[in-house]
Amino acid sequence: MLENIRIVMINTFHPGNIGAAARALKNMGLSQLWLVDPVEYPHDEAESRAAGAKDLLDSARVVSTVEEAIADCQLVIGTSARQRSFDQPLMDAEQAALMVADEARNGQVAILFGRETMGLTNEEMMLCHRHLFIDANEDYPVLNIAQAIQLVCYELRRASRQIDTLPEPAPYPRQQEMVLFYEHLEKVLRRTRFIIPQHEGRVMDKLRRYFNRTRPEKAELGMLRGILTSVEEVLDTPTTDKH
Amino acid sequence: MLENIRIVMINTFHPGNIGAAARALKNMGLSQLWLVDPVEYPHDEAESRAAGAKDLLDSARVVSTVEEAIADCQLVIGTSARQRSFDQPLMDAEQAALMVADEARNGQVAILFGRETMGLTNEEMMLCHRHLFIDANEDYPVLNIAQAIQLVCYELRRASRQIDTLPEPAPYPRQQEMVLFYEHLEKVLRRTRFIIPQHEGRVMDKLRRYFNRTRPEKAELGMLRGILTSVEEVLDTPTTDKH
Repeated sequence: MLENIRIVMINTFHPGNIGAAARALKNMGLSQLWLVDPVEYPHDEAESRAAGAKDLLDSARVVSTVEEAIADCQLVIGTSARQRSFDQPLMDAEQAALMVADEARNGQVAILFGRETMGLTNEEMMLCHRHLFIDANEDYPVLNIAQAIQLVCYELRRASRQIDTLPEPAPYPRQQEMVLFYEHLEKVLRRTRFIIPQHEGRVMDKLRRYFNRTRPEKAELGMLRGILTSVEEVLDTPTTDKH
Repeated sequence: MLENIRIVMINTFHPGNIGAAARALKNMGLSQLWLVDPVEYPHDEAESRAAGAKDLLDSARVVSTVEEAIADCQLVIGTSARQRSFDQPLMDAEQAALMVADEARNGQVAILFGRETMGLTNEEMMLCHRHLFIDANEDYPVLNIAQAIQLVCYELRRASRQIDTLPEPAPYPRQQEMVLFYEHLEKVLRRTRFIIPQHEGRVMDKLRRYFNRTRPEKAELGMLRGILTSVEEVLDTPTTDKH
């Protein structure tokens, strides 16, 4: 189960943090480290701080975009400081870990960590289904990124010991399927003129936030796509045949 | 309550680990960092890794011996890998944190961390009332020391949120009072010839382990010392007056 969880580090500045993170993962029994556009990598400092976890560094996936890192995932969790004004439900590390451990029995789950200086961007946060915060001292709540990763992996390990008694989790679609759905949805909404070029607003953002929060299961997504297709069929029918 | 907990780092080799530990403490709301005979300190690397926790470094207590660091403490926890052959009860970080948080409402508690290479010595482990282990991957259970400290501080913060409903903790004696008691005990046991020079064995070690595990409260310790004193009075009485 823990092997289905990927820790994604985006734009990491210090290679030492990457090495320390690799060790933190292996110490807790995780194995998937993904690096999105790391600033300096590979680097001796990463190897040095990885200590006995060099194998995790060697098998780390290095990609250019976050989208590549999460395409296969059914659940994406973003880590953030508490005060972010988004609709995605905010959970502490312990609660989030239970949710992750539950779904990781069946599919891939990604947990995103941002830059040392500024965390995740708004766009990256919006790709997430849930936001995770680590309860910390209000006077100094900013943890070193490898330390934050250590805490999250620790909670994941703890959660993994507890989830065996839960019922089978629902089958969720992968992120890539959601991306195709959003493209399909936008195309149809433009055709129905729910989205008009002059007043695009943030309709798609709001819809993505809605679906990220409510999370259609595979079968439900199938129905939604079927609905979109039926609307397209009406749109494609020559006017005299429309009811 | 958290301010009554001291994190004690013994013989730390890398100053970077000291700085990272200071940050880990402050992030979780702790403030007492004690350094016993650090190998390289002060050092720029400690300041650098402490980031926004330099104030904790500045107020860190640097001492030469563990005994100095724990003299005022009523509870001393040693961190160790799981397989240590001692009698002190072994608890995971979560359980230990509840015990620490409970007693830190009333007195000082110390948590000892050892050297990067080898942890705590047997002698240091024997000064402890309880041993704490962090559940980790059997294939690679050795955490970086600052990461281990981060996890323990995280559990302490979590425990601090839960202990308000517990009844008042028992009043325990400070380590320094126990040290005086052991000296008194050994003196009397030599006089009664329970300990004889030719066969000293590990009597005092075993007795210390017994008292560390069972932990007499202040009033109970008072009774034990009273018993020792009464024995000494018998020993001091000239032979014709003994019954």
